[in-house]
Amino acid sequence: MSVIQHSPGEKLTLLGTGSSSGIPCYGCQCPACTRARREPAHRRQPTCALFEQGDAAILLDAGIPDLAEKLPAGSFHAILLTHFHVDHVQALFHMRWGQCDPIPVYTPDDPDGCADLYKNHGVLDFRPVAAFTPFSLGKLSVTPVPLNHSKPTHGYCLATPQAKYAYLTDTLGLPDTTHAYLRDWSPDVMVLNCHYPPTVAQPRNHNSLTTAIQIAADFPDTPIHLVHIDHNFQTWLMENPSFQLPANIIIPG
Amino acid sequence: MSVIQHSPGEKLTLLGTGSSSGIPCYGCQCPACTRARREPAHRRQPTCALFEQGDAAILLDAGIPDLAEKLPAGSFHAILLTHFHVDHVQALFHMRWGQCDPIPVYTPDDPDGCADLYKNHGVLDFRPVAAFTPFSLGKLSVTPVPLNHSKPTHGYCLATPQAKYAYLTDTLGLPDTTHAYLRDWSPDVMVLNCHYPPTVAQPRNHNSLTTAIQIAADFPDTPIHLVHIDHNFQTWLMENPSFQLPANIIIPG
Repeated sequence: MSVIQHSPGEKLTLLGTGSSSGIPCYGCQCPACTRARREPAHRRQPTCALFEQGDAAILLDAGIPDLAEKLPAGSFHAILLTHFHVDHVQALFHMRWGQCDPIPVYTPDDPDGCADLYKNHGVLDFRPVAAFTPFSLGKLSVTPVPLNHSKPTHGYCLATPQAKYAYLTDTLGLPDTTHAYLRDWSPDVMVLNCHYPPTVAQPRNHNSLTTAIQIAADFPDTPIHLVHIDHNFQTWLMENPSFQLPANIIIPG
Repeated sequence: MSVIQHSPGEKLTLLGTGSSSGIPCYGCQCPACTRARREPAHRRQPTCALFEQGDAAILLDAGIPDLAEKLPAGSFHAILLTHFHVDHVQALFHMRWGQCDPIPVYTPDDPDGCADLYKNHGVLDFRPVAAFTPFSLGKLSVTPVPLNHSKPTHGYCLATPQAKYAYLTDTLGLPDTTHAYLRDWSPDVMVLNCHYPPTVAQPRNHNSLTTAIQIAADFPDTPIHLVHIDHNFQTWLMENPSFQLPANIIIPG
């Protein structure tokens, strides 16, 4: 778990920084998975984050299987859902039956959702939101931005009076409109998808380190925290310790 | 976790005996959920079981979120899936990306499956099987039987040279064909869905204690272990300690 503190009273906690298969991946004996079994600090659960500002807490995705244990009812106020793949929603299948106040869940406009989440939504109050149309959550301004993925997917740009945070998972590159918006907006902190090692010739649906570095080059003054890290990428990092990452790229612990 | 040992060398372990919402249910302050938070032995995860016979291990459903941690790759040989509701399949979303041998998953013929499990099946080898058509898994004979639920659903009748086990979740009552088959087959052990307390007038998709008792009356010599126990039923049991269950009905710990 990695905590990003850019401004006083604000905290972005990366609850999970892994891919759908996680680290360790089931049955895998690669160096990254073997190390993660031996040293739990090196485990990575599905990518998920919690943004806290004063008393307000906003969850970004809900794909960690035991999220309900980590975040009891009432400990957060809304969910910004990037998309409806299982590794980003699976805790909702338990939380939906909650005996608690309705939970607002902001989403891309996806007619399919995931499995029976729309049909049996329980306490989940799904609220589709449009790209580039800002809305407020307390003192937080939220602007969804489109991303390049295999399902309708939003990134979320969060602005407080103190700082600007861009949360960009899952994506391969950035749509031109999103790239232009971000260049103009100039985030103070970026969280960016990077699933594959640079050795993958044609990444699908997710960045490789090569495409992540291309994006990072356009935001040289922004610290960029990589997420959705797959076991193959983690193994590549372990086997290439002398590779010089750009100064603004951070691999969360 | 409750272990049923009917014959030497055979073991049916109830890994989970709860409903989709589990005990504790998210945010719930009822007596059952409050006790489960205080005393973890009273927790109930989604209904799931492991049948072991000598060296062979067969999983019945895969809805426990951390099942991959409990059962490493290679520790079981096949999955008998009762149906494609999320609380019966959710561990498969992680296991499918396994770096391991293919995992045979026997299922009802359900064109929808669950979310993208068919499309992105990874190491899962889905094998639809027909009701009342027996097949073999090593020394085990398996006969699927239809159940009454909101999705195509099988119960499974497992026969070894020593004993007969009927695994019947999720269902409301029993179809006439299944009831007749079971009466003729005469199981030594039954695992039976019971989701609701007897106070529910019109149970939907699952047995109440009333309908479970009606079924149990037709199998007076068979020990019947209730599963899919919801927090409302558990609370009812706590509040009615003097209620006399039929002698052949067992509430797993």
